[in-house]
Amino acid sequence: MSKQVLILKGDHIGPEIVDESLKVLRKVDEQFGLELVFEEGLLGGAACDAVGEPCPDETLEKARRSDAILMGSVGGPEWDGLERHLRPEKGLLKLRSGLELFGNLRPAILYPQLAEASSLKPEIVAGLDILIVRELTGGIYFGEPRGIRVLENGEREGYNTYKYSESEIRRIGKVAFEAAMVRDRRVCSVDKANVLEATVLWREIMEEVAKDYPEVELSHMYVDNAAMQLVKAPKQFDVMVTGNMFGDILSDAAAMLTGSIGMLPSAALDKNGKGLYEPCHGSAPDISGQGLANPLATILSAAMMLRYSLNAPDAAVAIEEAVSRVLDQGLRTPDIHTEGTRKVSTSEMGDAVLAAL
Amino acid sequence: MSKQVLILKGDHIGPEIVDESLKVLRKVDEQFGLELVFEEGLLGGAACDAVGEPCPDETLEKARRSDAILMGSVGGPEWDGLERHLRPEKGLLKLRSGLELFGNLRPAILYPQLAEASSLKPEIVAGLDILIVRELTGGIYFGEPRGIRVLENGEREGYNTYKYSESEIRRIGKVAFEAAMVRDRRVCSVDKANVLEATVLWREIMEEVAKDYPEVELSHMYVDNAAMQLVKAPKQFDVMVTGNMFGDILSDAAAMLTGSIGMLPSAALDKNGKGLYEPCHGSAPDISGQGLANPLATILSAAMMLRYSLNAPDAAVAIEEAVSRVLDQGLRTPDIHTEGTRKVSTSEMGDAVLAAL
Ligand SMILES: CC(C)[C@H](C(=O)O)[C@@H](O)C(=O)O
Ligand SMILES: CC(C)[C@H](C(=O)O)[C@@H](O)C(=O)O
Repeated sequence: MSKQVLILKGDHIGPEIVDESLKVLRKVDEQFGLELVFEEGLLGGAACDAVGEPCPDETLEKARRSDAILMGSVGGPEWDGLERHLRPEKGLLKLRSGLELFGNLRPAILYPQLAEASSLKPEIVAGLDILIVRELTGGIYFGEPRGIRVLENGEREGYNTYKYSESEIRRIGKVAFEAAMVRDRRVCSVDKANVLEATVLWREIMEEVAKDYPEVELSHMYVDNAAMQLVKAPKQFDVMVTGNMFGDILSDAAAMLTGSIGMLPSAALDKNGKGLYEPCHGSAPDISGQGLANPLATILSAAMMLRYSLNAPDAAVAIEEAVSRVLDQGLRTPDIHTEGTRKVSTSEMGDAVLAAL
Repeated sequence: MSKQVLILKGDHIGPEIVDESLKVLRKVDEQFGLELVFEEGLLGGAACDAVGEPCPDETLEKARRSDAILMGSVGGPEWDGLERHLRPEKGLLKLRSGLELFGNLRPAILYPQLAEASSLKPEIVAGLDILIVRELTGGIYFGEPRGIRVLENGEREGYNTYKYSESEIRRIGKVAFEAAMVRDRRVCSVDKANVLEATVLWREIMEEVAKDYPEVELSHMYVDNAAMQLVKAPKQFDVMVTGNMFGDILSDAAAMLTGSIGMLPSAALDKNGKGLYEPCHGSAPDISGQGLANPLATILSAAMMLRYSLNAPDAAVAIEEAVSRVLDQGLRTPDIHTEGTRKVSTSEMGDAVLAAL
């Protein structure tokens, strides 16, 4: 039973880091007899340049018939001048929404080998392992009405709508509780229920979902406090679940706590387990084409893909262990390089993972 | 020419920390001949208990005829059971909105004497001095329509509206640029213009405002990146300006970078310089009534009040210097206590500032 994997290399460092991940995927494909079939598609600036829109229908079609999608990163200053609906980011949003990839898993893990990289004191972050579950196809990102209108007094007003229905909240809640069941069994739901009605309902439904998971402890935190607690004592968290906008902010803050955002993978899942996998970091135009990018976040995204969408957990573990071994060997791309370790290029890092498999 | 100051002690540690600030204010009043006249009002849970609503009209009236307002902190678990519109936080929001206190100044300063308190590495935060300018009477906090409705399919949906008009953006932009003029002349405007139309207009108007301040450098940052950069390299910022919701999150994260949120004051100003001054921290129900609270954030809020609303900059400096001297003496309330310093109570700390004046 072969598995279809769509590859979306994207922009700038995207192709570089995806190429390394493909090497690794091909190797575990052989080793574990996975019968992976790869197909390529266009997304982001690359798609704008080639066909004039950031997520062509053909890409959406290919994604629909794939079992999983591995993406590099999209965007860059050369497309900033385009009309808003043609920008690379809009392609990503269309893909997430078109495939209903509502369940975004964003782990923030500090690898013991990289403890030095964090801007936080070692005792605050050593052993950090948080999973942020972000709702990805609703909330203020997609709420209508939205736009810029002219008011009666003649001045303009920009407006967006933040909304969540019970079923949208329930399904992301379940993702968080299921994830907590195989972790430390604690879910912290983040909202602003003291101000926003949309999140009053969020809190209520999370309480409801929690009833089906008596082994999991549910707590609630306001988003401003959550941002503080992430800085003060991040290890207090196991799973955090929140809406699209708050999740965007908190997951980036959490990722940066580790000091090595070049290491962090992510998954965006639909209700059947199909998923889009991408590194947490962006397309890094400033270092593209120079072999400076860290391919590990994408390689680890490929591992997540094997685990969550391709039913190949052994292959996932093999990749994760290979990455750990390479770190033990002291190999580092420039973003995670510190004194006493060996600086390597994007492809040298990919080759090292390959050799460690 | 006497000056009217309204005192809103609020809940839990509120009265304790305000009482210390009043001691200090009375002393500088004498020393500098300020002719301050104090009046008290009810706000928050204290107001709910006394008159059944968190911001009675009488308080709003008193606030209107004052030159400035000094507040402790509001809220606590005992009022969580109340209907939403009766909760202590709603009183604070009504006061901010009723007085049009749109310009929220939230400094995040790391006192050299407290460098150890931060969870970040000393080299990352030493000398930190950021000013976050948060819009406080608009955005999603106050946008209509809002509520919880029943959809056609029978399920409920919570919704809020995020909106900003040109004039709202312009006036907060001016506050930020004016502040930058007497600082390092750099403004970073934070938005999510790649996703939210409301913030596309925000970015455009900030560019417009910037034209009137050619000496000030304006940059833009997406909110997710801003959260990351605050963790990674906070000293890159001088003034940050942003909307109500993002400002709530980022200012708390920034405050926590200093590790001593018990030290941070804030101001909320209207267009004429009338202001509400309050500490950044909350009402800390867990430590209330035990003399454990740090009164310095409120004492420093009183100093801000003297500077921005009462035209008494010398008295403000006197208080700030007294606080610094007390820290030099090694006096610490429990929240900022470290080995080798002397632990003192709320009132001992207030007395020490008084003595240092
Ligand atoms: C590129 C942008 C639209 C996107 C988002 O805000 O979701 C990104 O920041 C992310 O977190 O994946
Ligand atoms: C209490 C709450 C409504 C308030 C806010 O969100 O504005 C608080 O968090 C603050 O930042 O002053």
